[in-house]
Amino acid sequence: LKKSSRYLEILTKEFSRLPGIGPKSASRLAFHILKKPLTEVENFAQALLEVKQNITTCKICNGISDEDICLICQDDNRNKSLICVVEEAKDILTINSTGEFQGVFHVLGGVISPLDGIGPEDLNINSLINRINNNQIEEIILALNPNIEGDATSLYLGKILGPLEVKITRIAHGLPVGTDLEFADSATIIKSLEGRQEI
Amino acid sequence: LKKSSRYLEILTKEFSRLPGIGPKSASRLAFHILKKPLTEVENFAQALLEVKQNITTCKICNGISDEDICLICQDDNRNKSLICVVEEAKDILTINSTGEFQGVFHVLGGVISPLDGIGPEDLNINSLINRINNNQIEEIILALNPNIEGDATSLYLGKILGPLEVKITRIAHGLPVGTDLEFADSATIIKSLEGRQEI
Repeated sequence: LKKSSRYLEILTKEFSRLPGIGPKSASRLAFHILKKPLTEVENFAQALLEVKQNITTCKICNGISDEDICLICQDDNRNKSLICVVEEAKDILTINSTGEFQGVFHVLGGVISPLDGIGPEDLNINSLINRINNNQIEEIILALNPNIEGDATSLYLGKILGPLEVKITRIAHGLPVGTDLEFADSATIIKSLEGRQEI
Repeated sequence: LKKSSRYLEILTKEFSRLPGIGPKSASRLAFHILKKPLTEVENFAQALLEVKQNITTCKICNGISDEDICLICQDDNRNKSLICVVEEAKDILTINSTGEFQGVFHVLGGVISPLDGIGPEDLNINSLINRINNNQIEEIILALNPNIEGDATSLYLGKILGPLEVKITRIAHGLPVGTDLEFADSATIIKSLEGRQEI
């Protein structure tokens, strides 16, 4: 018996189930909750439940949404003729948080991976083709992860979307900003050489 | 607008309010909740609320408890004649998690700190004296933090409890296990010299 309260023990266990939270952090978080005002804890509990109960998939981009159409696809300030294709819904957040991209998104729902039995038919490719056919799209930016599956899927999409008369680009792969050449792996250096640009 | 869903945004904000959780971790945790089954998230939300709604203070040790008397004070396997005095309820957990201490606890609720306006009358000292007077107590172990306030409070308790005919000890301060003498601060080295034991 390590705790003086069963409720505290249960909450600590719940926290320690979250990714990246060890037993010590879980215990600290449980004590933190104990000290928080009841209304704040109620808000937290409500936020947890509401996410599970209300969230759905955007009918346009397949991203996470509260309604049929997500806030980004609803946003009139966004450039709807520029579609960034990502693997997962959470990639939208990563790209959006830079504040640089002002277009919209399309979530593939994965990448082609024969070893995992995932083929093109398992991805949201048809809905992407429909979006291109039914709207004035200027450019499709492929922002898949720089690994074998991401590369293969980008190549496949390039082939499939090629006849649709839309510009298709891929985000650059190369050395991350702020790193030292010394510590970069050779695959990254090769990519950065291939992607060299005139200055 | 960074997220495609308001509910996800709210939950991310709630996670980022927790201590030690930055915006990136908060976002990762919110997505993790999205993927969890509803029943698991419900259990988590319930654990949060139950801790706030049901937890009280143990009438014996002032520790965290689900009932009038906490699980530790209720435990017949524990040595009730050995009381470890700690500053905060969470210190009980720290000492208990070692598995070495088989006695019971007494939570002071702080330390004497004139600068913060905390005097002996603000601490659970009278209830400690009552515990000593009304039970057969063999030893009081003072386990306050090794700082000025902790030291002053330990000295004060030593004086106050001295006439009660009970053995009073203090946990040893010295070099932490596994560290190098080279990296220890001089205050710790002085404490470890003062507390030297014959081998």
